[in-house]
Amino acid sequence: MTSTLSPGELRRKIRAGEHIGNTSGSAPGYVQCNIVILPASHAHDFLRFCQLNPKPCPLIAVGDAGDPTLPALGDLDIRTDVPAYRVFRDGELTGEVPDISALWRDDLVTFALGCSFSFEEALLADGLEVRNISQGRNVPMYRSNLDCTASGPFTAKMVVSMRPYCAADAIRAIQICSRFPAVHGAPVHLGEPALIGIADLSQPDYGEPVRIEDGELPLFWACGVTPQLALQAARLPLAITHSPGCMLVTDLRNSQLAVL
Amino acid sequence: MTSTLSPGELRRKIRAGEHIGNTSGSAPGYVQCNIVILPASHAHDFLRFCQLNPKPCPLIAVGDAGDPTLPALGDLDIRTDVPAYRVFRDGELTGEVPDISALWRDDLVTFALGCSFSFEEALLADGLEVRNISQGRNVPMYRSNLDCTASGPFTAKMVVSMRPYCAADAIRAIQICSRFPAVHGAPVHLGEPALIGIADLSQPDYGEPVRIEDGELPLFWACGVTPQLALQAARLPLAITHSPGCMLVTDLRNSQLAVL
Repeated sequence: MTSTLSPGELRRKIRAGEHIGNTSGSAPGYVQCNIVILPASHAHDFLRFCQLNPKPCPLIAVGDAGDPTLPALGDLDIRTDVPAYRVFRDGELTGEVPDISALWRDDLVTFALGCSFSFEEALLADGLEVRNISQGRNVPMYRSNLDCTASGPFTAKMVVSMRPYCAADAIRAIQICSRFPAVHGAPVHLGEPALIGIADLSQPDYGEPVRIEDGELPLFWACGVTPQLALQAARLPLAITHSPGCMLVTDLRNSQLAVL
Repeated sequence: MTSTLSPGELRRKIRAGEHIGNTSGSAPGYVQCNIVILPASHAHDFLRFCQLNPKPCPLIAVGDAGDPTLPALGDLDIRTDVPAYRVFRDGELTGEVPDISALWRDDLVTFALGCSFSFEEALLADGLEVRNISQGRNVPMYRSNLDCTASGPFTAKMVVSMRPYCAADAIRAIQICSRFPAVHGAPVHLGEPALIGIADLSQPDYGEPVRIEDGELPLFWACGVTPQLALQAARLPLAITHSPGCMLVTDLRNSQLAVL
C-alpha cells in the first residue's frame, strides 16, 4: 500500500510509526540509502574509508555534526525517519530501535550511502530479471577475500551481493550498472566464486540463497553491508546504522544518480 | 617504420606498392576498416544485413555506386589503397591481388566496416592486456552458433574473436568497448564457450589460439569475418574484400568513434 506514497509522505508515516520494517519496493523510483551515524571524532576516518572504497561505500550525503537533517536528500530528520535502527556499542550490536531521538548527541555525524535497490530498479526497467526479487528473497551476500583499503580503525573484507545472469544479460547488467557509481556501480567480480574467497554460493553469510540456472554466471556487486563490518571492526563507543532493508527513503530520483 | 606515418602517407605508400601486407600497428590512433565491395544489385540487401547485425557488421561508410572514393574517411581510392584484396566469384575465393583497378566497374559499391584494431587500442590505452598482441599472434576466431538475421541472400552464423581476461578486467573491458559500438562494441558472450557452440578454444576456425591463464574467462566479440561468410553464402557473381589483416587505413581517429 505504501508503494504509491511520495518519499516525503512515506517518511512522515515512518516518523509516526505507521510504516514499520522493510522499505523495499516503497516509493519506487526514489533513492534509498544505507545510513551510518557515528561521533565526529571518527567522522574523518570514516569519510576517508568511503573515499578509499567507493564501490562498497558510495557516499551520497554527509551531515553536519549534531545536525539531524540532510537537506540535499529531502525534508527529513534522521532520528525518526528510518523504520528501524541498529545501535552498536564498542562494536557490538546492543539493540534495534525505531527512533534514535533519545540517543542523539551534538557530535553525531550522519553518512548516507547508495544502496542496491537503485540499480536493481534500473536492471528491471531494462527488462532484466533480478533473481532475488523474482524469488521474493533477500539478496544473498557473502564475505569475500577482497580487502578494503583501511582508514584509521576502519577496515573490512568486502561484502558482495550476488545476482545470476546468462552471459548476454551479464554484459548488459554491467553496462547498466556502470551508469550508477553512486549505488555500487558495475560488479566487482563474475564467474568463479572461489577466486574471491567464496566457497559455497548456497551458504550466503547474509540474506538467502537464490537459484542459479544452467549456463548462468554469478555476478558479484560490492555491498553496503561492508561499511557495517568496518564499523564493527572499529569498535567505536557508539555507532548507529539502519537495520537491514529498513532504509532512508530520499527525495532523489534514481535516474538523477546516472552519470550518463 | 610505417607506424609513424600519417594515414594519408601510409595510403600513398600502399598505393605505390611500398607497403605490402598487414596494417596492424600502422598509423596508431586511426580507424582501420574491413572492406566489402559488391555490385549495386545486391547493395541494398547487404546494407540491410549490416543494419540488422550491427555487432558483427558495424557500418562506418558506404560509397556511391561506381565511385572509388569515400570522402568521409579521407582522400582515398578504394581500388589501390588497401594492401591486398580478395576476389570472390560465385562465392569462391578466386585470387588475392594488390590492386583492383582492373576489376572496377561503375556498379560496384564499397562498404567500410569497423574493425577490432580500434577497440584493442582502447583496451591497451586503459592498461589492459590484449593477449593476442602480447603473444604476437592473430586473434583466435570461432564460428559460433549465434544466427545473424538474414537479408536477401546474405546469411551467416556469427564469427566471434576471443580475448581472455580475469573477471575484474573483463568488467572493465565491457565498459571500455561499450563506448565503441562502431567497432563491434561490447562482447556478445563470456564464459562457457559451449553455450555459443564453440567446442574447443584451442582449435580456432581462423587466427591462432592464445594462452588462457587460470582464473581467466574467455570474452567473445562479434567479428568482422562474419560479413565475409555472409558474402560467400550469397554466392554473388563478383565480390571483393580486403585480405585478413590488410585493412583500409582511414583519417578518422579511433577516439572519434566513442559514443561517450
